[in-house]
Amino acid sequence: MQALGLMLTTAESCTGGMIAMAMTERPGSSAIFERGFITYSNQSKHELLDVPKDTLLKHGAVSAQVATAMVRGALVHSRAEIALSVTGIAGPDGGSDKKPVGLVYIGFGDKSGLTEVAEHRFQGNRAEVRKQAAEAALKHLIRFIDRLP
Amino acid sequence: MQALGLMLTTAESCTGGMIAMAMTERPGSSAIFERGFITYSNQSKHELLDVPKDTLLKHGAVSAQVATAMVRGALVHSRAEIALSVTGIAGPDGGSDKKPVGLVYIGFGDKSGLTEVAEHRFQGNRAEVRKQAAEAALKHLIRFIDRLP
Repeated sequence: MQALGLMLTTAESCTGGMIAMAMTERPGSSAIFERGFITYSNQSKHELLDVPKDTLLKHGAVSAQVATAMVRGALVHSRAEIALSVTGIAGPDGGSDKKPVGLVYIGFGDKSGLTEVAEHRFQGNRAEVRKQAAEAALKHLIRFIDRLP
Repeated sequence: MQALGLMLTTAESCTGGMIAMAMTERPGSSAIFERGFITYSNQSKHELLDVPKDTLLKHGAVSAQVATAMVRGALVHSRAEIALSVTGIAGPDGGSDKKPVGLVYIGFGDKSGLTEVAEHRFQGNRAEVRKQAAEAALKHLIRFIDRLP
């Protein structure tokens, strides 16, 4: 990313900062990362990232629609060219038949308006779901960047 | 904290999300944590947390003054009663005689206007400085809460 001169921003819900932490592990990370959002509550997703209240109400916080809106909002409220979002149910509570624990949406987007969302259904406890979500996000990120024109 | 009905918000620079990650490790963490800010660049400290440009210029991003301003801004831009901030030099670059690698300011504050800042000088590599900063912040937090009226 540094070679491409691209900056990334992160909008994390269930991973709670894990991805930003990974992005800032290496020396010189300020060249690729300058801010991140941890939006755990619906209110914070709306207030910090402009996720419409209607979208939260209609689709729920854990949805492809919210993952997409988080990406768009993070791009608006940062200087980054690429944004990554994660919203999911880490458990042990909060799951349902339709949206079980382990359901995680990972969104990506760039300033051109391109956005994509991947749905994952991870197995395991809270720590394992969070770890798998962060790892999947970083893997997706590499693939997303590889495909950029 | 949950017993006290208090919410925390975090404003992290050098720890890059490590503290928010720790705060959201346990089930039910949404009762005490609903948003966090990762403000790595000066611009993000100003834009997301209202840290005055003058303060950044005069005292530098790694200063007690900026740690204090980050706390106040995080309280304004969240629903939390308590805010914690971290700004420091994790290294290996960015250090100077006056501000060596390992210098970290940890700020705390509450809605009443009370703010305090602790200065630390940690030893070790980048990962060790970040880890010590996050651990110190969590220890301070417990003491800060214990002393609340």
